[in-house]
Amino acid sequence: MTDKTTHSPHLTPLAASLPATVPFIGPEAQERANGTAFKARLGANESVFGPSPKAVQAMADTAADAWMYGDPESHDLRHALSATHGIPAENIVVGAGIDGLLDSIVRLTVTQGDHVVTSAGAYPTFNYHVTGYGGTVHTVPYTADHEDPERLIAKARQVGAKLVYISNPDNPMGTCHDAQTILLMIQNLPEGCLLVLDEAYVELAPDGTAPAFNIHDPKVIRTRTFSKAYGLAGARVGYAVGHVDLISAFNRVRNHFGMSRVSQAGALAALADAEWLTHVRRQVQTSRAALTQIAEDNGLTALPSATNFVAIDCGQDGAFARAMLTGLTARGIFVRMPFVSPQDRCIRISCGSPQDMALVAAALPEALTEASAAAPATSRNL
Amino acid sequence: MTDKTTHSPHLTPLAASLPATVPFIGPEAQERANGTAFKARLGANESVFGPSPKAVQAMADTAADAWMYGDPESHDLRHALSATHGIPAENIVVGAGIDGLLDSIVRLTVTQGDHVVTSAGAYPTFNYHVTGYGGTVHTVPYTADHEDPERLIAKARQVGAKLVYISNPDNPMGTCHDAQTILLMIQNLPEGCLLVLDEAYVELAPDGTAPAFNIHDPKVIRTRTFSKAYGLAGARVGYAVGHVDLISAFNRVRNHFGMSRVSQAGALAALADAEWLTHVRRQVQTSRAALTQIAEDNGLTALPSATNFVAIDCGQDGAFARAMLTGLTARGIFVRMPFVSPQDRCIRISCGSPQDMALVAAALPEALTEASAAAPATSRNL
Repeated sequence: MTDKTTHSPHLTPLAASLPATVPFIGPEAQERANGTAFKARLGANESVFGPSPKAVQAMADTAADAWMYGDPESHDLRHALSATHGIPAENIVVGAGIDGLLDSIVRLTVTQGDHVVTSAGAYPTFNYHVTGYGGTVHTVPYTADHEDPERLIAKARQVGAKLVYISNPDNPMGTCHDAQTILLMIQNLPEGCLLVLDEAYVELAPDGTAPAFNIHDPKVIRTRTFSKAYGLAGARVGYAVGHVDLISAFNRVRNHFGMSRVSQAGALAALADAEWLTHVRRQVQTSRAALTQIAEDNGLTALPSATNFVAIDCGQDGAFARAMLTGLTARGIFVRMPFVSPQDRCIRISCGSPQDMALVAAALPEALTEASAAAPATSRNL
Repeated sequence: MTDKTTHSPHLTPLAASLPATVPFIGPEAQERANGTAFKARLGANESVFGPSPKAVQAMADTAADAWMYGDPESHDLRHALSATHGIPAENIVVGAGIDGLLDSIVRLTVTQGDHVVTSAGAYPTFNYHVTGYGGTVHTVPYTADHEDPERLIAKARQVGAKLVYISNPDNPMGTCHDAQTILLMIQNLPEGCLLVLDEAYVELAPDGTAPAFNIHDPKVIRTRTFSKAYGLAGARVGYAVGHVDLISAFNRVRNHFGMSRVSQAGALAALADAEWLTHVRRQVQTSRAALTQIAEDNGLTALPSATNFVAIDCGQDGAFARAMLTGLTARGIFVRMPFVSPQDRCIRISCGSPQDMALVAAALPEALTEASAAAPATSRNL
């Protein structure tokens, strides 16, 4: 009885071998399971400050045009990005968020038997795609809560990696490297290895974080998104920048008509509204400070953040941080935490409004008391 | 110099082997090339009648919420579809249009060395995905402008196909089979072969076109979309229905956070507005009749259509029909035509508003005169 099999008989051997796990459970699924809505949505590093009102208006205005497919070339958006970054449009490909672009990048470069290097506990959706195309993921540990370029490069050399992944700034720790460190990493890339430089949060990082674009370098592809600083996670618009030979290869595999027309309009308007980006940066800065203060008020340590979230070191092990997370969740606050030790001593809280911060300030001491009662501190990791 | 290579050194052998062609050029690219906007957009079988006003309102209302990722489970939409079709939600997967779903279907089931069967001149995006995952596409001819289930099955048996594709109703000819014919095709599927039944246009087809859903049959997966009758091509929402073992396998490869939140809201509202669907069906019927009349008035033959477009037989060969298409395009009317002989004796015109029909009625005789002058009829194909 096929009803009793666990997978379809039609799957390829690779597809049949893949785990049925998903990188993240959405907050809506948690809300359905809990039977109540979250009071504060601070788990997915979305921008609660919202997209530019001009982007909202552009999307609302375009809704009636949704009968038309989006321009498969995303011409206007690519050319606006071209002007913003001072690079040719042919070096830019637009896709359905960085997740969609990572899918294409991995599909273009990784096949069964290939090796890929990332950091233990870095972005799981990248690993999901590597595994999904039959590649083998190798990891190196973080060093002092930073992804470690030297270790990544050494491992890439050791395993003959096709890809090495780094996010700068990093998710989930919020730390970052300066441009010089990234340039040195690029310089040291082994032959045949492509660097995937994920800059999802770069608009929120200090000046000097992003190296200048070098579109002539075939060894680097960089991904950016409208999901974070631009507040359009639900619109699904990201882009990748790289050498024209690599960028043009996306046209061989991407879903050409995959972009929402409404989202294209929203992203275009968001990009044009530099004032809103400045406003969001200020809000993020204020909220980072608030989260840092809340941590301090509770005897905990907030890691310095170059992103729109703050990792709070709960001072003990993963089980303790997990108990903290459970306590916050029970109080209607959606947060997440790193998956891997030793980063999993932290909880990760997205920046939010003053109301969100007040909710966190009220809930965190209670969660801390509960977690401490359940698992009294015996030692401090790290 | 890498600048002079035609493809990136990082590509997999498969990716490096893929052609750089794309299935369709968008109308926007043509408009940019021509330097003028089309007066009538009738080439992509979009619904010029638009989405339900309630869907437009829902999208406009949701624009400000676009800072939140869409629910990765598309729970509400899947459950609404479940209620509409009377099948469990676990048998439905929502994706970014049928194109995105076809990508996942092919990725899950086809690998290098696998064989796939479709009709010569059927949906090229399906072939694009098959080639893209290393499969080999085999084709059989249409029979009397219908995709031919018997030939498809025979070829599938002959080549040991993993997949056989049929669209019902068909694109680009607009013809359809009744449910009984499809059921017989399913019954005759060879062992190990999955039928991909693309029902993009089924809401516009006569009653009796779609077989009842049989979610217990592991040999069929059906794709549907909000792009056609529901008028939401630019929102990118489709769904596939099949056996739970196959549907659940999508969770191993799909981009879980790939759906636009705005689009999810639009599709949900569109699905709920049955009156608008009825309205669109009437408009489509009126426009089909208008296109048929225009064909007749010019001594041409319109094929009977079960879709929101009409294939007009121009009575000669592909070059002649291409000249007709060029003439219409030059007059500001975006249309397309089948790629393959003998279907390419036709041009394919999407249903449109009375204004659109008036533009076609005015332009078509001129295009016909031009085409006839350039290539005088010597023989009539078919």
